[in-house]
Amino acid sequence: MNICAVVMAAGEGRLMKSKHAKVSHMIAGKPMISWVRDALCQAGADEQVYIVGHRQEQVRAILGEDVAFVLQEQQLGTGHAVLQASHFLEGRSGCTIIINGDMPLVTAETLQRLLDRFQQGNFAAVVLTAETSVPHGYGRIIRDSAGNLEAIVEEKDASEAQQEVTEINSGLYCFDTALLLSALGRIGFRKKQQEYYLTDTIEILIRDGYKVAACKADFMQIMGVKDRIQLQKAADLLNRRIVERHMLAGVTIVDPASTWISGDVVIGMDTVILPDCSIEGNTVIGEEAIIGPDTHLHNVRVGDRVQLDHVTARDAEIEEGTVAGPYVQIRPGSLIGPYCKLGNFVEIKNSTIGAYSQLVHQTYVGDADVGENVNFGCGCSTANYDGMNKSRTSIGSHAFIGSNSCLVSPVSVEDNAYVGAGSTITETVPSYSLALARARQTNKDNWVISRGRIRNQRVNP
Amino acid sequence: MNICAVVMAAGEGRLMKSKHAKVSHMIAGKPMISWVRDALCQAGADEQVYIVGHRQEQVRAILGEDVAFVLQEQQLGTGHAVLQASHFLEGRSGCTIIINGDMPLVTAETLQRLLDRFQQGNFAAVVLTAETSVPHGYGRIIRDSAGNLEAIVEEKDASEAQQEVTEINSGLYCFDTALLLSALGRIGFRKKQQEYYLTDTIEILIRDGYKVAACKADFMQIMGVKDRIQLQKAADLLNRRIVERHMLAGVTIVDPASTWISGDVVIGMDTVILPDCSIEGNTVIGEEAIIGPDTHLHNVRVGDRVQLDHVTARDAEIEEGTVAGPYVQIRPGSLIGPYCKLGNFVEIKNSTIGAYSQLVHQTYVGDADVGENVNFGCGCSTANYDGMNKSRTSIGSHAFIGSNSCLVSPVSVEDNAYVGAGSTITETVPSYSLALARARQTNKDNWVISRGRIRNQRVNP
Amino acid sequence: MNICAVVMAAGEGRLMKSKHAKVSHMIAGKPMISWVRDALCQAGADEQVYIVGHRQEQVRAILGEDVAFVLQEQQLGTGHAVLQASHFLEGRSGCTIIINGDMPLVTAETLQRLLDRFQQGNFAAVVLTAETSVPHGYGRIIRDSAGNLEAIVEEKDASEAQQEVTEINSGLYCFDTALLLSALGRIGFRKKQQEYYLTDTIEILIRDGYKVAACKADFMQIMGVKDRIQLQKAADLLNRRIVERHMLAGVTIVDPASTWISGDVVIGMDTVILPDCSIEGNTVIGEEAIIGPDTHLHNVRVGDRVQLDHVTARDAEIEEGTVAGPYVQIRPGSLIGPYCKLGNFVEIKNSTIGAYSQLVHQTYVGDADVGENVNFGCGCSTANYDGMNKSRTSIGSHAFIGSNSCLVSPVSVEDNAYVGAGSTITETVPSYSLALARARQTNKDNWVISRGRIRNQRVNP
Repeated sequence: MNICAVVMAAGEGRLMKSKHAKVSHMIAGKPMISWVRDALCQAGADEQVYIVGHRQEQVRAILGEDVAFVLQEQQLGTGHAVLQASHFLEGRSGCTIIINGDMPLVTAETLQRLLDRFQQGNFAAVVLTAETSVPHGYGRIIRDSAGNLEAIVEEKDASEAQQEVTEINSGLYCFDTALLLSALGRIGFRKKQQEYYLTDTIEILIRDGYKVAACKADFMQIMGVKDRIQLQKAADLLNRRIVERHMLAGVTIVDPASTWISGDVVIGMDTVILPDCSIEGNTVIGEEAIIGPDTHLHNVRVGDRVQLDHVTARDAEIEEGTVAGPYVQIRPGSLIGPYCKLGNFVEIKNSTIGAYSQLVHQTYVGDADVGENVNFGCGCSTANYDGMNKSRTSIGSHAFIGSNSCLVSPVSVEDNAYVGAGSTITETVPSYSLALARARQTNKDNWVISRGRIRNQRVNP
Repeated sequence: MNICAVVMAAGEGRLMKSKHAKVSHMIAGKPMISWVRDALCQAGADEQVYIVGHRQEQVRAILGEDVAFVLQEQQLGTGHAVLQASHFLEGRSGCTIIINGDMPLVTAETLQRLLDRFQQGNFAAVVLTAETSVPHGYGRIIRDSAGNLEAIVEEKDASEAQQEVTEINSGLYCFDTALLLSALGRIGFRKKQQEYYLTDTIEILIRDGYKVAACKADFMQIMGVKDRIQLQKAADLLNRRIVERHMLAGVTIVDPASTWISGDVVIGMDTVILPDCSIEGNTVIGEEAIIGPDTHLHNVRVGDRVQLDHVTARDAEIEEGTVAGPYVQIRPGSLIGPYCKLGNFVEIKNSTIGAYSQLVHQTYVGDADVGENVNFGCGCSTANYDGMNKSRTSIGSHAFIGSNSCLVSPVSVEDNAYVGAGSTITETVPSYSLALARARQTNKDNWVISRGRIRNQRVNP
Repeated sequence: MNICAVVMAAGEGRLMKSKHAKVSHMIAGKPMISWVRDALCQAGADEQVYIVGHRQEQVRAILGEDVAFVLQEQQLGTGHAVLQASHFLEGRSGCTIIINGDMPLVTAETLQRLLDRFQQGNFAAVVLTAETSVPHGYGRIIRDSAGNLEAIVEEKDASEAQQEVTEINSGLYCFDTALLLSALGRIGFRKKQQEYYLTDTIEILIRDGYKVAACKADFMQIMGVKDRIQLQKAADLLNRRIVERHMLAGVTIVDPASTWISGDVVIGMDTVILPDCSIEGNTVIGEEAIIGPDTHLHNVRVGDRVQLDHVTARDAEIEEGTVAGPYVQIRPGSLIGPYCKLGNFVEIKNSTIGAYSQLVHQTYVGDADVGENVNFGCGCSTANYDGMNKSRTSIGSHAFIGSNSCLVSPVSVEDNAYVGAGSTITETVPSYSLALARARQTNKDNWVISRGRIRNQRVNP
């Protein structure tokens, strides 16, 4: 069956109080509208047309070239919106899903159930509905005494009795495409509301003698996003789904409420995620790793048994058994080999670090190639920028870089070489050599007394 | 109408298990009692008298000179407490609000509703009540068959049937001031309970033929704070109110439960607050900023489009477009200009930093004036303290400060000057000059072999 | 009365998706099975036998030598499991508690109530039960019209009517030991289920004319852990119990949901714990301290009025009035004296720091003994490792260590000595001396112009 989708993404979203299109707001790692698109794709709705209007350029930029767009210049209701897509739908067989772009919680499985119901029952349309104890703000589903769907009544048009109904219209439908077009041509302009109602098509089809069914979904799935409180609630629910999927697959997540994982992340068995972490992009984490607390990964490959405590990393790779933290940043283009130790206040940028190397205290390695088993003292840095250009530093295996030394790039420290503490290295240090670049110590005796700088009166707080 | 308020703040608060007065405990950025005072002020109760007793000096210190205090030496019940304020109330017309100092959740709107009800109904008193499924611990509201308030019964005096009542007394009242005084003079000492009950005034007024009304509020508002679990619950609710106000005004708050915002903070539209942030004092944040995760601001002005990742800042200003973090501290007296970049492990204290300047790695700038477009390498510091005195450092625009260099204040690096890596600068560096203050490198060939310090046997973990 | 316990810990725990034994998973600071063992010990069940099977070596390693183990080679149901312990129970008088090893939430108080009920009622057995609205997955308690326990029906064997029952079997029992053994010998193998049911012993005992009672507990207590979602929920509940105990004892905990405290931690009155902290091991915190946010302590003694902001510390001691953070690590073997100040990006390892000393910026002190009132500038470090050996540094009281200096151990800076900024110290600095070890500054005039390195065209972003 040919499955089309019409996605309504033209609304202003006034309650968001934003300069950005409502459906462009981020939610669990991607724009709201992308959740809708991805669920439609997964459910087989390959032909998608987006009704755009307010800030359409932002919506187009997110969705790109794979979908069609129709501009709705004036917002004259849901019926008017879908009418704009008539041209796109004409001549197509099969069915059309109509969905709001602000429904990021609908899953492909729910769309599939809607399609199944449509196909199995010879219906002109199927309406996705939900039961809720707080129906306020939604259209109500009116059923006849036999339980068949009779009408959908907008809240503002509902009688008091109808307002008591707790089954609500999600605004998500599956229509027979040809019948939808036929009914759309006949809906009238509601003067009082100054709108064309899409729900009028349901009434028309029933009047024409067709059957329309309701398919119930969980209220949580059909929740729309009107303001930022709802945006947050939706993000929370989406995140919770992802987090629980990982938990059931064998990942220990100590605090699901403070753990934010994007949809494409892969995490190995028996890995433990401590509180206050975000794991985003195409991050892949191995088995038995310990991540967190307060660790933030974006597109990072993390090996088995790696431990990351208060680490921020992006576009990098950290191989098995390496331990980092607390307070470490690993910046793009870095490859940290296996069994390294990165201690506190360490930054690695666009560098490779060989196996078993140790950078334990306050060290910055940028634009460098570091061999295996290299030991850095405290306060070492690569001076990789001279004010105009960046260049690289090379450090061989088994080298020892003394504390508070600075390697001015481009420069090499060869295999097995030593750099003495406090040295500024500007030339190659050959293999097995010790390089020193510091002044001799001189003591000025009794300088403290002669200069009147005795500090011991300052003990009391 | 003249509106007075009597606030009961004399209790020991034994369940708090604290050396501090119960009403002095902090809650969402200010002492509990200040929430009550501020709500009363907003509702127009300008004449406030506080009944103090236990640790009265702490309560007086918080509230200052704008309110009156009456000492209750012995705690003999609510009736006795209000009796202490008779002298203050005598001769005043209008009404008197009586409220407990441990009710920080009552809003000015609720107080206003209470006052409106009082004024509209010709009542001697109006009692604020609430419905709850867990009335345990509260006095119950007894109504007659017509629904009129008949009596308030303390829990310990309530019959079993009365204990089933789910409408409870909040302990918050609005009285006609003259009638309150008249009734107060007639309440008796309850020997069994060893207390004077304020609620006996209600009984007396009804017996006198006056009408007393009940005004229902949300139970959440009238929640008192008896122990630290309730303290936390109240703080959480108050914070949630503030956070949701910002969300509805156009701020994206990713995790409301881990975002703590004080009442006076201002945040611009489309700013995103990531998890684990506290934003306190008179902090003002512009539009389209990204704050957090784990960022803590106190009295900070933050410009549009600023990004702060793991930043702690206090009493400072950060201008538009500047990006800082992760792991940055900005201390009091700092002004960071627009479009700067502050990288990891950077500290700024009592300094100005000009536009477009970059301090990307492990740098400390204290007591300094830095121009525009200055680039600091890694591990730079200002030595602003000589063991006895602090002095300032001046760095001109377009200067370049090489890695691992130290500027010993007082000292100047003029516009367009360079400081070579590893230098300790003690004298002025003139414009367009390069300053070096480091030793030449010497290599001791084969030192590693001759000293027997080959490290490559250490590769295996 | 002699109290034995049989703990079932042989199951595979397939839903955990783990390479580790289910009962070995950590929960609020200790393995799941240790919670069960500790509750049993507290309730007086001194003789404990653990039925082990899957990954038994891990379970044995956790529990050690104080308990007995019986291997259940094949998992043929709960009846079969307990049967393995017959040899252990034979000849003992008194009663036997049977409990699953995956029930970490049962408290000693609940076990005590079970034992009390057993002893007071002359019962052959007492079953711990609970009411729940979600009985799915549990055996149901079937009572006769008089309310006496009649049978326990496994869910898979329950009729539809029985499935409606909301009182469920916790799987926790107290049996008369002799009667248990007598009944165990008579339970049959259920061919359909391929299991021996322990609950069949209940039926047998009732048929024999003995009385069996049910003792209701809170459903929260009897929750088992089958997968990692339940593991997390149990950890959360256990942590909440601990956190609330501290709150009621006078500790302010700003965000209980992000505060993780192990069972043995001691915290003094009026101490405030800010969000995102973990406090583990034998940590003891004094009064009026402020801990957090984002502070992680393991086996740390913290004095009164200490403030720790973004601090990670382990196996250390921090004396009264010391203020540390943000971004500080205190590593094992460190003793920080009273009224010290540790500023940002500071690391202390295996060192003592005397009273009133200040390490305010980017400093590493490792393997050092530091006196009182010592002031470190920014970027100071001890070079305590020469590539082969570690050695110690000694710094006397009232010493001043200039910024960006490095003390190459073994070395001493004596009382009242000064080290000039930018110095690499390799020899003793005598008392009252100033040590310098740096090169003189030279300025190369107009170098920036002659080398074509003017940077001011780079202002625009």
